[in-house]
Amino acid sequence: MNACMTMTKTSPELLADPLFDPLFDQRFKGFPRTQAPLRRSELAAAGWNVLAGDLPLPLALLKREALEHNLAWMQARVRGWGIDLAPHGKTTMSPQLFRRQLDGGAWGLTFATVTQLAVGVAAGARRALIANQVVSDEDLGGIQQLLAAHPGLRIVFLVDSLAQLALIEAWSAAHPASVAFEVMVEIGVDGARTGCRTQEQAIALAERLRASPATRLVGIECYEGQGATGDSGRDSAYTNTLMDRVEAVARHCEAEDLFDADEVLVSAGGSALYDLVALRLKPALGLPVRGLLRSGCYVTHDHGTYQRLQVSVDARIGCATGESLRPAMEVWATVQSCPEPRLAIVAMGKRDISFDLSMPAPIARAARDARSPDGVPASWEITALNDQHAYLRWSAAADALAPVVGERIGFGISHPCTTFDKWHWMPVVEADYRVSDAVSMHF
Amino acid sequence: MNACMTMTKTSPELLADPLFDPLFDQRFKGFPRTQAPLRRSELAAAGWNVLAGDLPLPLALLKREALEHNLAWMQARVRGWGIDLAPHGKTTMSPQLFRRQLDGGAWGLTFATVTQLAVGVAAGARRALIANQVVSDEDLGGIQQLLAAHPGLRIVFLVDSLAQLALIEAWSAAHPASVAFEVMVEIGVDGARTGCRTQEQAIALAERLRASPATRLVGIECYEGQGATGDSGRDSAYTNTLMDRVEAVARHCEAEDLFDADEVLVSAGGSALYDLVALRLKPALGLPVRGLLRSGCYVTHDHGTYQRLQVSVDARIGCATGESLRPAMEVWATVQSCPEPRLAIVAMGKRDISFDLSMPAPIARAARDARSPDGVPASWEITALNDQHAYLRWSAAADALAPVVGERIGFGISHPCTTFDKWHWMPVVEADYRVSDAVSMHF
Repeated sequence: MNACMTMTKTSPELLADPLFDPLFDQRFKGFPRTQAPLRRSELAAAGWNVLAGDLPLPLALLKREALEHNLAWMQARVRGWGIDLAPHGKTTMSPQLFRRQLDGGAWGLTFATVTQLAVGVAAGARRALIANQVVSDEDLGGIQQLLAAHPGLRIVFLVDSLAQLALIEAWSAAHPASVAFEVMVEIGVDGARTGCRTQEQAIALAERLRASPATRLVGIECYEGQGATGDSGRDSAYTNTLMDRVEAVARHCEAEDLFDADEVLVSAGGSALYDLVALRLKPALGLPVRGLLRSGCYVTHDHGTYQRLQVSVDARIGCATGESLRPAMEVWATVQSCPEPRLAIVAMGKRDISFDLSMPAPIARAARDARSPDGVPASWEITALNDQHAYLRWSAAADALAPVVGERIGFGISHPCTTFDKWHWMPVVEADYRVSDAVSMHF
Repeated sequence: MNACMTMTKTSPELLADPLFDPLFDQRFKGFPRTQAPLRRSELAAAGWNVLAGDLPLPLALLKREALEHNLAWMQARVRGWGIDLAPHGKTTMSPQLFRRQLDGGAWGLTFATVTQLAVGVAAGARRALIANQVVSDEDLGGIQQLLAAHPGLRIVFLVDSLAQLALIEAWSAAHPASVAFEVMVEIGVDGARTGCRTQEQAIALAERLRASPATRLVGIECYEGQGATGDSGRDSAYTNTLMDRVEAVARHCEAEDLFDADEVLVSAGGSALYDLVALRLKPALGLPVRGLLRSGCYVTHDHGTYQRLQVSVDARIGCATGESLRPAMEVWATVQSCPEPRLAIVAMGKRDISFDLSMPAPIARAARDARSPDGVPASWEITALNDQHAYLRWSAAADALAPVVGERIGFGISHPCTTFDKWHWMPVVEADYRVSDAVSMHF
């Protein structure tokens, strides 16, 4: 099944839209310098192969099989849990990946900002969460503009304070033709990010939201990801304590008739403890409940942060490694200098790959003329990144396998979000690194 | 003098090119959501003001007066030192800023990659350094393609190993119609990045470059920035030791007739110790010497890393603070939640501002309806960033001045390179935050 064939639910008109079928050219980092511009839909026919040197490095790429596995695996898991997926679009900001998520069965998409939301709506999302407090006039007006332009579009954002509600009410009072904003009350944790710290705050806020003509309370939300440690005992306790609070507020809101909805949304979910919150997203209320998991990083997974945390997920859900999520992104770069013993400088830096959670992981190598990758010694590691350079070091025991100038090295990433945002496109490759498709990003 | 008037040397045809006068629309993060798309040249007439809430936040902006001061100040300094500026374009990757640098008197521009170089050439650069080892066929071919397409264009890159030369020679042998590549030998420092670690390596390489039909040796280069500590005694010693080596290799190459040039290029320069290397970029050779300083971050300077280092520069060159470089970039964002005592969550994250060298610095605040900024308590600090959020904390003594939901906060940056690359455009504002121009970025 090739990449385009997965988009069966998307109309031909939408696929011909430049948003899905953009024109790539030499201004796109990684596009061949000696080739004419090509549309996404024309790339497969070009017959390029990354390891044949057809595209300049550094280059971030997606591995089709792992990508499609992840998309299908997470959707099947969520279905099995009896909940829905509203994957966080901020991870990829890619219309082509948004389409695959929606066509694969996602209920909707999640975004962090109204600017991101607008890209998602243009990509066809008709149900969207903003997993953030919306407070500014520009953002509130932007939501209303999207709602007016797209009949049937649903946008739900978070509220966690009376101060925020006052700003929403002021905007709505100044714009009497606007519709009421759909909101969820956010439940937060002391020392973590946003969200009501106490049940009393949450309930007082819910009562005011019910009474306000500017808002409709449609659900309860939290973000559990900041508590993740990888220790299942601690992580389960943390998650359950938080989800107990979400459930208690939801029950109270139902009992007091504070929801203004036929169906209550209960949403949580980063990409670390998603299996734990998934089990708590359908509390038994009188009203129907839709549990919405917002994981975003599952699309490509990684060789770093989320791979480490997935080990605990796998143990909890009984998956062997590789059965669940698989790393689908690699960044390839060239050794430009081996200036002293046990140091190689690779032409790839902070502009090309994530470094915020941990350093890139060398996972493969290909000599200048090689057409297939080899493994790398276990001692290879990136010890530092500059803007445009990486420092690769190894132990003396691996000297005989030292990298050489001109050799290509493949890196696993440590954080999908902060790698996607360094590229405007990424080719999608087959197992042999032949380019069969591409995605574009809109950060 | 307004922004456009500084571009006196640029032809009207070039200024009308979409590269310089791009169309901005709602897909550009920070562009008003309720406005029709506008060209850069139309922005000033729109009358937008950042503090009036005309543009959605978060928003990175450039302050015109500081920007123009920095451009003029550095050019005058370099002229005073009797050397030339080839500012590193990787910092901004902005055609409009490239034009200002070139029109202001820069000899040429510096880049890290051939992809960056192609943007610079499109922006009108006709002399360019690649401050990196070029090794791959794609990159070597890309350079030849640019040279063929732009008569008179000069491109000089770095060489630091015989292994690299062998790759260049193999490419040239396979492309007999190509012209010889202009190269500089890079002198490096043990434990630092690229470059020949010993004089013997450098000289042996220079001899091979002279003998090779694939290359023309035109200069000697180093990068001193990794040695910067802010301690002038140590930094001077480090710089002079390195520049002694550069000079010795240059003298040897001249004595042995290894240069293939009428004028020898001697280049160094980050943005930390630029005044120290500047004094050493014109060693007395028999051949004319052109000293090329490659500083890039001076354009916007910052409120972090380079501001700290500039204190030492100012002391060395006898400048009062503010006489020399001034911070020209700010990122403004909105307080979205004040969820617990002494914590505010600001809607700005790793996608919006640099965090690799240090955290953003809160420097100004503006209440929701304020049209001019106020100062902030000294204890305000950003303690962490998530992808889309910043954690602002303060001391108990500043509780009475705590931020409120909906308030706007202005941040100084800690590293220009890794802030520019998070935006596709930035408005240029006057002292009152009125938008008078904009720049675009091509990362």
